[in-house]
Amino acid sequence: MLEEIRQQPQALDRTLRSELKSIEKLKTKFAAKRPSSIILAARGTSDNAAQFGRYILEIATGIPVSLAAPSIFTLYGARVDYRDALVVAISQSGESTDTNLVLERGRECGAITIGITNEEESTLARIADHVFLVRAGSEKSVAATKTYTGQLLAMYMLAYALGAPVSLDELRALPDSVEGALTLESEIAEKTGRYRFMENAVVVGRGLNYANAFEWALKLMETSYVVAERFSSADFLHGPIAMVERSFPVFLFAPAGVTWPSIREMIERVHSLGAETLIVTDASNREAAAMKGTRSIILPAKLHRKDAVPEELYTPLPYIVPAQIFAACLAAEKGLNPDQPRALSKVTQTL
Amino acid sequence: MLEEIRQQPQALDRTLRSELKSIEKLKTKFAAKRPSSIILAARGTSDNAAQFGRYILEIATGIPVSLAAPSIFTLYGARVDYRDALVVAISQSGESTDTNLVLERGRECGAITIGITNEEESTLARIADHVFLVRAGSEKSVAATKTYTGQLLAMYMLAYALGAPVSLDELRALPDSVEGALTLESEIAEKTGRYRFMENAVVVGRGLNYANAFEWALKLMETSYVVAERFSSADFLHGPIAMVERSFPVFLFAPAGVTWPSIREMIERVHSLGAETLIVTDASNREAAAMKGTRSIILPAKLHRKDAVPEELYTPLPYIVPAQIFAACLAAEKGLNPDQPRALSKVTQTL
Repeated sequence: MLEEIRQQPQALDRTLRSELKSIEKLKTKFAAKRPSSIILAARGTSDNAAQFGRYILEIATGIPVSLAAPSIFTLYGARVDYRDALVVAISQSGESTDTNLVLERGRECGAITIGITNEEESTLARIADHVFLVRAGSEKSVAATKTYTGQLLAMYMLAYALGAPVSLDELRALPDSVEGALTLESEIAEKTGRYRFMENAVVVGRGLNYANAFEWALKLMETSYVVAERFSSADFLHGPIAMVERSFPVFLFAPAGVTWPSIREMIERVHSLGAETLIVTDASNREAAAMKGTRSIILPAKLHRKDAVPEELYTPLPYIVPAQIFAACLAAEKGLNPDQPRALSKVTQTL
Repeated sequence: MLEEIRQQPQALDRTLRSELKSIEKLKTKFAAKRPSSIILAARGTSDNAAQFGRYILEIATGIPVSLAAPSIFTLYGARVDYRDALVVAISQSGESTDTNLVLERGRECGAITIGITNEEESTLARIADHVFLVRAGSEKSVAATKTYTGQLLAMYMLAYALGAPVSLDELRALPDSVEGALTLESEIAEKTGRYRFMENAVVVGRGLNYANAFEWALKLMETSYVVAERFSSADFLHGPIAMVERSFPVFLFAPAGVTWPSIREMIERVHSLGAETLIVTDASNREAAAMKGTRSIILPAKLHRKDAVPEELYTPLPYIVPAQIFAACLAAEKGLNPDQPRALSKVTQTL
C-alpha cells in the first residue's frame, strides 16, 4: 500500500500526459453540444471519487449532477430516462457489473457515455463511447490509493472538457504537490502511534473535500478496522455530534477558503466537548497551522489560489495523500497487513 | 420521543386526508407537463426522507433524481441550471436556510418548486410554489420521528402525483401497519437490554429501505451515542465489512422481495465472521422470520405485495417504527434522555 502511495506522482503525470489529447477532443464535442445533466455511477473508493466529481462539476459547470444508485437498475430494473445526459461510470477494474449496467442504460437512452478505469481491456472500456484511462499501473493492494487520485484527476479533466475554468498548468503542478505530501511520511508514521488503540473516529470534510472524508474513513475501516464515521460539517451538526465524547478523535480537512470558517467552528465545538482533533491543511492556511489545541499535518505546498474558483480547487488531490499514509501506517502500528484486509478481495461483484 | 412515536398512526392519517386534494391537483399539473429531472434538498433526518424519495421516484417514475448538496449554493454560490426540473425542499421546521436556498435557485431557473414541512407559517411554506404540509403536530423531541414518517408519506404522494403506480388504498392502510408495529413496544424494550453496553453498530438496508438504514443509525447516534455506521449491502462489501468483528452487531432491514437475497447473503457473511445480527422484517417474509442464528423483530402485518412494483413498496414506513422504538428504549436502558441529546438543539442552522 505504501509503495503504491509513493507511485502517485509518476502515475498522475503519466495519466495527464496520455489523456490530454482525448480530453481536448471531448472539449470540442461538448462545446458543440452541452449535456443537460450528468450521471455518475460507481461503488466503493470509486464512489468517493464520484462524490468529488459531483461537487467540482456542479460548482464549475453549473450542470446538475446525480450520483446513480446502481441497485435501481440491478434490483428494480427501473427505466430511468437519461436522454441528453452525460453518463459516467468509474471503476478501477472496469468489471463492476452494476455500474456498467448504469452506463448501458445511458447508451439505450442515447446519452453520451464515458468510462473511467484503470484497465484498458475491461468491459467498461469496451462499452463506453469514450474511455478515460487512469494509467496508475497495476494496483495490488486491496486498499485503493493511486487509482483514487487518478480518478480525482479524471474528474478535473472532465470538468475542463465541459468548459470549467480548470487550469492545465495547475493540474500539471499536482504531481509536485503530491511529492511534497510524500515527504511527510515519517512524520505521519510517528503521529499514528497515538492512535494505536483508537477504535472509533469521525472524519469531517466540507464541499470539495467532502469526498476525501469518505475516502479517509473508508481507508481506516478497510486497513485498520477503525469504526470511522464520515460527515460534512453541516450534517454533523444535525445529530451525530451528540455521540462525540472526551478522547473521541475527529479528523478534518482544513484548506484555506470558503470552507474554513465552518471547519474552524467545528474544531472549536468539538474541543468544547472535550474531544481532540487532527487536521490536514497546507502552508497557505496560516490560521489553521497556528491553531492551538489541535494536532495537524501540514502539507509544505501553498495550495490556496486567490484566482481559482473556488479558492481551494486544487487541494483535494494532495490532501488525501497524508490520509492514505496515515491509514497504512496505522495498520502497521496495529500489527495488521493493510494489503490484505480480512474479508475483502480486490474485485467486488455486486448486483 | 416514545409519545411522539405512538402518535404516528393519527398523524399519518391526518396528513393523508388533508393533503389528498392538493396532490390530485398536482397530478393534473404534472400530467400536462412532466419535469425532466427532480432535485431533492434536505439536511439531517429530512435528508434521509429525501434518500427514500430518490429511490421511489426513480424506480416508480423513471425521472432522474439528484440529492442536492446545499453547500454548492451556500458556500460556492454556484449557479446550477435547474430549468425543467422539479425542485423539492424537505425541512421539519421550514427554516433551514441552506435547503431554502436550493429552492430559491429553482425559482430563479423557472423550475416548479415544492416545500415539504411540518410548519405552515415557515419561510419554506412561503417561498415554495406548492406546499405539502406534514400534519404531525408540534414535534418536541430533538430526535425527529413522526415528521420522518410524515415525510416518507409525502414522498409516496409525490410519486403518485407524478403518475407512479402508488395505490391510495395501500397508503390509507399504512396507519394500521404502523399501529401493528407499535404493539411490539414492550417486546422491543426487552430486546434492547442486550445492547446496553454496545458502543458500535452497523445498520444495513438496500434499495427502498436504504434510507431507513441512515435513519436508524442517526437515531442511535443522537439518542444513545452509539457509533452507528450505515451502508447499503452492496457498498458494505466494498471495504467496510473488513471492520466487522465478533460481537459486532449488524442491524438489517429484511423485507421479502428483490432485496432479500442480498440481505440474506449479507446476514450469512456477517455470521461467518462471528458477528451477530438483528433484523426487522414482517410476517410475509417467512424465510427471514424462520432464519436460524439471527435475532429478529417481526412486524405482524403482511406487507409484501405481489402486484406492487417493487413488491416491498409499502415496507419502509412501517419498518422504521420498530427502529425508532429501539433507539428510544436503548437510550432509556443506557440511562440517557432521548428527548434532549447533549450538544443538539431542534432547529439547526447551517450555511
